[in-house]
Amino acid sequence: MYKYLREEIKNLKAYRVNEMEYKVKLDANEGIDWMDGLNRYPLDRSDELREKLAKNLHKRAQELLLGNGSSELIELMMKAYLEAGETVVSISPTFSMYRIFTIIHKGRYEEYPLDGMERIDVDRFIEFVDEKNAKLVVLCNPNNPTGSLIPKEDILRIISSVDAMVVLDEAYIEFSDYPSGDDTGEFKNLVVLRTFSKGMALAGIRLGYMIGHEEIIGYINRVRSPYNVNVLTQSVGIKALEGEGTTKKNIEMIKSERCRMKNELEKMGFKPLDSQANFLFFPGEMGLGNSLAEKGILIRSFGGELEGFYRLTIGTPLENDAVLKAIEEVQNERSKLK
Amino acid sequence: MYKYLREEIKNLKAYRVNEMEYKVKLDANEGIDWMDGLNRYPLDRSDELREKLAKNLHKRAQELLLGNGSSELIELMMKAYLEAGETVVSISPTFSMYRIFTIIHKGRYEEYPLDGMERIDVDRFIEFVDEKNAKLVVLCNPNNPTGSLIPKEDILRIISSVDAMVVLDEAYIEFSDYPSGDDTGEFKNLVVLRTFSKGMALAGIRLGYMIGHEEIIGYINRVRSPYNVNVLTQSVGIKALEGEGTTKKNIEMIKSERCRMKNELEKMGFKPLDSQANFLFFPGEMGLGNSLAEKGILIRSFGGELEGFYRLTIGTPLENDAVLKAIEEVQNERSKLK
Repeated sequence: MYKYLREEIKNLKAYRVNEMEYKVKLDANEGIDWMDGLNRYPLDRSDELREKLAKNLHKRAQELLLGNGSSELIELMMKAYLEAGETVVSISPTFSMYRIFTIIHKGRYEEYPLDGMERIDVDRFIEFVDEKNAKLVVLCNPNNPTGSLIPKEDILRIISSVDAMVVLDEAYIEFSDYPSGDDTGEFKNLVVLRTFSKGMALAGIRLGYMIGHEEIIGYINRVRSPYNVNVLTQSVGIKALEGEGTTKKNIEMIKSERCRMKNELEKMGFKPLDSQANFLFFPGEMGLGNSLAEKGILIRSFGGELEGFYRLTIGTPLENDAVLKAIEEVQNERSKLK
Repeated sequence: MYKYLREEIKNLKAYRVNEMEYKVKLDANEGIDWMDGLNRYPLDRSDELREKLAKNLHKRAQELLLGNGSSELIELMMKAYLEAGETVVSISPTFSMYRIFTIIHKGRYEEYPLDGMERIDVDRFIEFVDEKNAKLVVLCNPNNPTGSLIPKEDILRIISSVDAMVVLDEAYIEFSDYPSGDDTGEFKNLVVLRTFSKGMALAGIRLGYMIGHEEIIGYINRVRSPYNVNVLTQSVGIKALEGEGTTKKNIEMIKSERCRMKNELEKMGFKPLDSQANFLFFPGEMGLGNSLAEKGILIRSFGGELEGFYRLTIGTPLENDAVLKAIEEVQNERSKLK
């Protein structure tokens, strides 16, 4: 089970937090309560939230680890598994932080270019991982910023074929029509990352979670900072789990709006990629993002190799209508200038 | 100014977050609001809180960086400055996470033993740092778990003599009678870490901050995860800054109680070290911590080289009385058994 784990982490013990019942608690250098009990450290492993979440997911609590956004969870995987100079493989284009985190954690980053920015040739990808001697494979699925989804059978084939730890970042999975990879608990080279930021629409609280074999979760706890999820986030997280009806309704609305927006953008001459996430990705005229921003409409523009590409989050019908109207205005203004 | 910075970080650009005014915001894949606007990501650099805090500290906002507890800030320093295999020097005993973080960030950890667990021989320490070829020097001041303080003139001498970055962890500085090192802004090899967990008594929100030269803060922002401090913590942090009167009063009370508790413990035969923090550190009979825990009184026991040492946080007068009473009971029970 220690497979792939960094040598130094095999001998590292997790920082142990004492969570006993008490009448007087003077063991953690906490101060005097003056703001609703916030003088106390949070539960180190977010026990109540973790247990409720586990129940919802039909998992056991020890198969989950919570973090300050998925960002922290990606970094924890690198801390535990990546020796200096070892390689992380991902696809391209994808979430730019994978590359940045790899550099920060002293690794090398190699990207496998998707065909037409969408499709992965699974056999070639497995070969690529092998050639690069990757220690970690990070796959964002559905992928950000493209919105495309690697089918589950391909994901399974990748996990079972590569000689590396696989990090499956499912930040956007709630918007997909296809099943997640989170029932792949028999794999000992996989963790699945999820977040409260997207489907749960709680980006402000910074809450992500990792699903994995309990032995892997145990290793990751060794490199996790004590008390990594604050009291307020844990408490809103618990409350949010009770509101699943609302978020599910919103997700259905976004999926339906995604379909409408794709059609509308196509009518306007754009070619958005098929998306299984809460956004659409498409090439457009240079400066489109700036022109929209001048009208108070923010969409994501990209630089570098993705210059000229845009990513539009699907909002409420009203917000989406405002975007369509603004794009039309920009197009009209430009055609007058020609 | 790039001195000491990791090679890879010299070329790394920080992840850029767009924070423009807007009517419709569809650039960050946020969901539909259903819980008080928590669908939005926090301000990436905690601008409002950072500006208010800067004002209180008579600093400029660009000299501050906020984190998910000081833990994150210690890690950020290692991410930016520590190449694989490079050395971090600290004192012993001290906060155990320095060692753990060093291992996680692929460094070597070397500890300089304090004389009598309290005093540092500055010349010998500077030599030690030099011999070990340290890249980072981490000093907890006042020190945890001992409570002892390195005088400011010694700190200044260390900073100006070592060929390394110095991280001055002032988590407990508000409880000290002596000045902090935070007016050492002319040093380009120093950052000072502070926290809302101790003097501000808000451990639950996980909020720490780094004070340093604005160029250093700029480098650290390159290795900081986007949106590292959540909305709720930023908001409570802002509110807390308005309540400084209360926290100052509580700090005075703790300082006075620290004096009383030291005397009382001495009367009971213990020998606590002089403390400039909100706790007392003393050797005691084996099992004292467990005996107290059975009575519902939690104090910190240590293992390893500190086996038989205890750290007692100074609480309210009532809590402190309860501890004294419980210790007396334990002592009586034990003397009866003899």
